[in-house]
Order: sequence, then structure tokens, then C-alpha cells
Amino acid sequence: MNDTLNTILSHRSIRKFKEKKIDSETLDMILKAACSGSTLGNMQLFSIIVTEDKEMMRKAAPFHFNQPIATNAPLMLTFCADVHRFNKYCEYRDAETTAYSNLQSYQWAVTDAIIAAQNACVAAESLGLGLCWLGTITYNCDEFIELFKLPKNVFPVACIAFGYPDENPPLTDKLPVEAMIHHEVYEDYNELKINKLYKEKEEHPNTIALLKENNLENLAKIFTERRYVKADNEHFAEVLENALRRQEFKK
Amino acid sequence: MNDTLNTILSHRSIRKFKEKKIDSETLDMILKAACSGSTLGNMQLFSIIVTEDKEMMRKAAPFHFNQPIATNAPLMLTFCADVHRFNKYCEYRDAETTAYSNLQSYQWAVTDAIIAAQNACVAAESLGLGLCWLGTITYNCDEFIELFKLPKNVFPVACIAFGYPDENPPLTDKLPVEAMIHHEVYEDYNELKINKLYKEKEEHPNTIALLKENNLENLAKIFTERRYVKADNEHFAEVLENALRRQEFKK
Repeated sequence: MNDTLNTILSHRSIRKFKEKKIDSETLDMILKAACSGSTLGNMQLFSIIVTEDKEMMRKAAPFHFNQPIATNAPLMLTFCADVHRFNKYCEYRDAETTAYSNLQSYQWAVTDAIIAAQNACVAAESLGLGLCWLGTITYNCDEFIELFKLPKNVFPVACIAFGYPDENPPLTDKLPVEAMIHHEVYEDYNELKINKLYKEKEEHPNTIALLKENNLENLAKIFTERRYVKADNEHFAEVLENALRRQEFKK
Repeated sequence: MNDTLNTILSHRSIRKFKEKKIDSETLDMILKAACSGSTLGNMQLFSIIVTEDKEMMRKAAPFHFNQPIATNAPLMLTFCADVHRFNKYCEYRDAETTAYSNLQSYQWAVTDAIIAAQNACVAAESLGLGLCWLGTITYNCDEFIELFKLPKNVFPVACIAFGYPDENPPLTDKLPVEAMIHHEVYEDYNELKINKLYKEKEEHPNTIALLKENNLENLAKIFTERRYVKADNEHFAEVLENALRRQEFKK
């Protein structure tokens, strides 16, 4: 065990922050860490929008479905898949300017952006900060594209709120590590295996409380009937696909 | 500065490894770190295929375009976007089984998988390992889906080779951090800004050597005419989109 592993293994989302601002030295270190990860072909196909202005946070809040954290955090970082900068570079060097305006390049750029985002998270936590990812960024991508004035070939893929923790929640109840691991080939799940892997989570006091509160008989239905309902997901899939087309990542 | 920041800021790809095997305790720690990151709604929409069998590496090698690293590393981890496990859970709890078979859920699952992958990388480097990402995983997704026997609703998105470094290369020549950073809104790039941001990279001895070797006049063309050519990218974009359809992440 070492400090880095300790930082990674202690991760849990923090949604309540102290008033304390994040100083520019700390922010610079987080951004430097974000920009130090692997990137496809060393092309660095990502951009980071730094939000510190409370007015910008208030404008963004409805697109984050008014989660309190969208305005209460001192810092938000929005990570974008970005092939625009590289295309501009190509333009000014008389090279092909649309080589990376396609879905394969989008996949590369998403990967670069999420690597950068997770590096920022680990760096921030090593400096005593807490954080929470806001999944709403890809739901309401159209509104964020407009708000942040993103040009074609740039797409917002991660938004993270950072601040000094003003709460100390326990670790999240996760599946046992073995649930995610396969040796050599994918080992499929049968009912027995699923029952075993989800047992602890289903018996967790948080789950029991949720079922009572929602008047539902199991945790799966909390997801499919309350949190992430099929019709909503399919609607937001269409929004995403249309936005990818408009941002010229697909035809 | 702390150990975690030091680890992150010292990252560079390692492509030559010692014969030394990675022991199971170290592997377990890397996998535990991988599974400790943020995930959408705590759904943990990812799986990790552990490859240690040299025969599997040899089978995979052609799909990695026979890069030496595809067979020389003692360990490969392939991270998959995976909503199949959650769908199975729903099936055994009489909940909707296709709520997450769409492109929006794919985006969530890719994010979960890359967060896990980057956590694994930082953890591994903190333990003295080196690593290199293989972008070929999304090019030849069809072949990897078959090789790893991935069911519908599982998609390979990152493949990383790990081992003890047998080389000590300098840090990669990256753009200055400011190139990726935007304050409050996206600040577009003009020719002057591009020239400034790419100056150091263009004057780097590596670049000068590459231009000579390829008989090309600038770095942009190394990318557009040699490394990642438009026609190839568009071909692999189509491969990706068709595979997403076959894996039932889109209609």
C-alpha cells in the first residue's frame, strides 16, 4: 500500500463543500495532472472548460436539473472530446482538415478526455479536495454546447464539481471486485452468480431504505422504474446522436 | 507536490518490459483500484478482461497490427463498456431488461470503463510498473468481441499493456497545459495562437527527425498523411458504428 493507492481506494463522491476557494496554485496542479495522461498518438484530443464564475454556474444549473452541487461547488471542470484544435492546426499547415471528423476519432477523443478527467480527480483528492461527477453533461449536451460556445468537433463528455469536503460519507456500497473481472475470456453471468454478486448490495441498509421510500420490491426496479427509465434513456440517446451529427462527429 | 502527483506527472508510455511477472497481489491491487472510481449512478457499467496467457496474446496480436508490445507484456487489461451484467441483474429481478441498450447508456459505460482504466494505470505506476495503451482495440473491435467472447451490450474500449519497465524514456513532448484550458467559455484558436502553442513541439528533435524520415514538411501532415489518414479513420468509424449496432448499443 502507498499514498497513491490510499487516495484511489478512499474515493467516494462528495456533494457538500466548504466555502473555501481553491487557490490558483492548486488548480494549476490539477490541470497539469489532467494533461499528463496517455492520449492517442500524443494528439491530446481534449479540452477543459474551467468554471469558477457563479453566474455561469447559475446559467448551467437547469441543465444539471438543478442539483445543488451544480452551484455550490467553488470549481467545475468540464472535459470535452476535442478534435477541433488539431483540425485548426492542420488547417494552418495545409494538411487535411476533416481527417478527424468521424465517430472513430470521437471515440479516441472521449478516451483522451476521460483519462484527463480521472487524472484530475486523483490529483485533486491527493490534495485534500472532494469531487462529484455530474452525468447530466451528456443528457443536456445541446445546452452545454451552446453555453460553453463549443465549436463543431468539440463535445462535452464529463463535468466534475470540486471543493473542500464539508461531509465525510462512508465508502459507496460497490459490487465485489470479482464481479467486474474476467480471465482470458468473458465469463457470463447466470442467476446464481448474479444473486451472489449483488447479495451484499441488496442487503445494504441504504438499499432497504430506498425500497421502502420508493415502495418497490428490489433494487433493479429502483433503476429501471425511477432513476434511469428506458423511455428517458432512449430519448437522451437520440439527443446525443443528433448532437454528434451537428458537431460533425458523424454523418 | 506529493507522491500521487509525482506518479501522475512522471507518466510516459513504456513499450519494453522486463521478463519479470506481475504477482497476483500486485494485480489484485491494480484491479481493486480500477474498481474504486466514480461510476454513473453507482451502476459499475464496465468489465475488465485480464490477459496473462501468451497464447491469447498471440491470437490477439494481428488485431493489434502485430505491435511487439501486444505479445511482449506480461499483462494486458482490456476494459469494456458493459451494461450486460446490469441487464442480467434486471432480468433476474423481473425488471426491464433493455433500458440500457442505447447510445446514451453506451456513453455512460465508456466513461465508467475509462475511469477504471486510468485508475488502474495510476495505481500500477505507483507500484513501479510501466504501461502503454493500444488504440487498436477500437479499430478492430469486431475481432476483439469475438476473441473475448463478449456478449451483446459489452464493448471493448481500452486495452493496456503492463509490465516492469526495461527502458527509461524521457517525458513525451506535449503541448503546454494552457493549450487545453478554457476559462468559462471555449476560447477559439487562430493562426497566431496555434503557432505559439505548437512551436515547442514543432521544434522538438523528435519532430525534426520524423519529418526527415517521412520526407514531409510539417508535423500535421505526419498525422494526416501517414499515421491517421482520413480514409482509414472513416473506414474504422463505419466498423465502430456497425459493431455498436451489432452489440445492441444502437438501432
